[in-house]
Amino acid sequence: MRIRKAVITAAGEHHSSLPLQTLVDRQGEVRTALRLTLDDIVSAGIEEIAIIVRPGQSAPYLSAAGVHASRLVFFEQDNPRGYGDAILRTREFVGEEAFLHLVSDHLYLSKSELNCAAQLIQAASRHQCSVSAIQPTRENEVIYFGTVGGTPVAQHDDLYEVHTVIEKPTPTIAEQRLVVAGQRAGYYLCMFGMHVLTPGVMKLLKQSLDAATAGQSIDLSGSLNQLAQTERYLALEISGRRHNISYKYGLLLAQLALSLSGRDRDLILTELVNLLASR
Amino acid sequence: MRIRKAVITAAGEHHSSLPLQTLVDRQGEVRTALRLTLDDIVSAGIEEIAIIVRPGQSAPYLSAAGVHASRLVFFEQDNPRGYGDAILRTREFVGEEAFLHLVSDHLYLSKSELNCAAQLIQAASRHQCSVSAIQPTRENEVIYFGTVGGTPVAQHDDLYEVHTVIEKPTPTIAEQRLVVAGQRAGYYLCMFGMHVLTPGVMKLLKQSLDAATAGQSIDLSGSLNQLAQTERYLALEISGRRHNISYKYGLLLAQLALSLSGRDRDLILTELVNLLASR
Repeated sequence: MRIRKAVITAAGEHHSSLPLQTLVDRQGEVRTALRLTLDDIVSAGIEEIAIIVRPGQSAPYLSAAGVHASRLVFFEQDNPRGYGDAILRTREFVGEEAFLHLVSDHLYLSKSELNCAAQLIQAASRHQCSVSAIQPTRENEVIYFGTVGGTPVAQHDDLYEVHTVIEKPTPTIAEQRLVVAGQRAGYYLCMFGMHVLTPGVMKLLKQSLDAATAGQSIDLSGSLNQLAQTERYLALEISGRRHNISYKYGLLLAQLALSLSGRDRDLILTELVNLLASR
Repeated sequence: MRIRKAVITAAGEHHSSLPLQTLVDRQGEVRTALRLTLDDIVSAGIEEIAIIVRPGQSAPYLSAAGVHASRLVFFEQDNPRGYGDAILRTREFVGEEAFLHLVSDHLYLSKSELNCAAQLIQAASRHQCSVSAIQPTRENEVIYFGTVGGTPVAQHDDLYEVHTVIEKPTPTIAEQRLVVAGQRAGYYLCMFGMHVLTPGVMKLLKQSLDAATAGQSIDLSGSLNQLAQTERYLALEISGRRHNISYKYGLLLAQLALSLSGRDRDLILTELVNLLASR
């Protein structure tokens, strides 16, 4: 199983300006947020990238992609019917291959030698199945995420067999259906916004869309829950952190995380102490 | 002396994208950098604002100005001949009034009740003369700034009579010509990027441009040095800090300074500790 295609969803309401926001990377170079993501996934082996955008919004993504522009194919989501529908638009592009999927408004910062996408692709290649990246998350935040229930895989600290996926559960539902052995009390496995998926998911999304009433939106979690009933499907705890840059302070925190783990750490720490002292 | 006009220079090489960069202000609202500056100067009494841009670059400034767009007049600097030339383009706009001048790639964050522009306008109105905002700066940084030599004004801790202005002096020249009584050893009074200027400056800039050889650029410091020989000219130590957002980490540090002095201070401090702990 070789993963060489990626699907990035970028048709959300606030997505059009995000890829143009600039950050300073760990080496001190100024890059767009999109460019940082593309650097990671290309170095993880991705060759072709589909981006789903709102009609007419491909131009800024193309210019923000830098040297990776020639790898991009755009799909415009007219008459949008949700996140699941956005992914389904790339069914022909994906064909019969497993693919990497990520969202455009997150920045994924690895804590290990391998970047986040590479960690996930390595696990999917090794186990020959769909794998979703997850992060243990406190119960007060599960209502913001797709959340996974399952069982630990023997001899793999960071791997789980997925049995159930529920989109934005309440803490009560999480406690009834999503408790995972070995997790700290009150912690659940929430989606990280990055997946390797088999083409089987496209079939399930299509069934979901066909079954929906006219105009109804479909999400991804419903189809992932079905995937868990039909194929082997794992979840991987990523060594890293995701930053949602569409959140108000997301860009600030992503930039701080980058700078505090990069070449200019001492400089930024010094400025930080100055700022705190000069209040 | 009433100050109701402002001149903002924005025709530098990296200026075109800066006003569109967004920040979260002290109240937690998302604003463009330009909007934050305009909010300050309008609340300080400014009614009309001239912005000098590169040819064809007024559109992003106009959209970034928000509710203040109707106060803006644009001057396109074709055949640019430096910073002094940029200001001189607004001579007709300024007419016979004293005006506030600031640069578009700085963010000015006050530490007192009055914003930085209001502090400066108050001093100029009280003393009926040109006043430049300055900040005591360590000698290793004087080579980046216009630097002022002069004498303290009796009974005003934060005011100086300007005798000399030198653009980006070496530490040796600063030590020979710009030592100011009462400053800490090794500290000099460097420009803050904000001035109230009398129309006399326009006359001096014009003379300077006429005397320059064809194609030669003119700066502002030369004319300010001449101003000090012809009119009363003061420097005010501002209670605040400037952030140069065209510097690589400038936007990060400006955002941190805003957030750490604003409504969401505790939230940002918590995230900061998390980031530092999770390294």
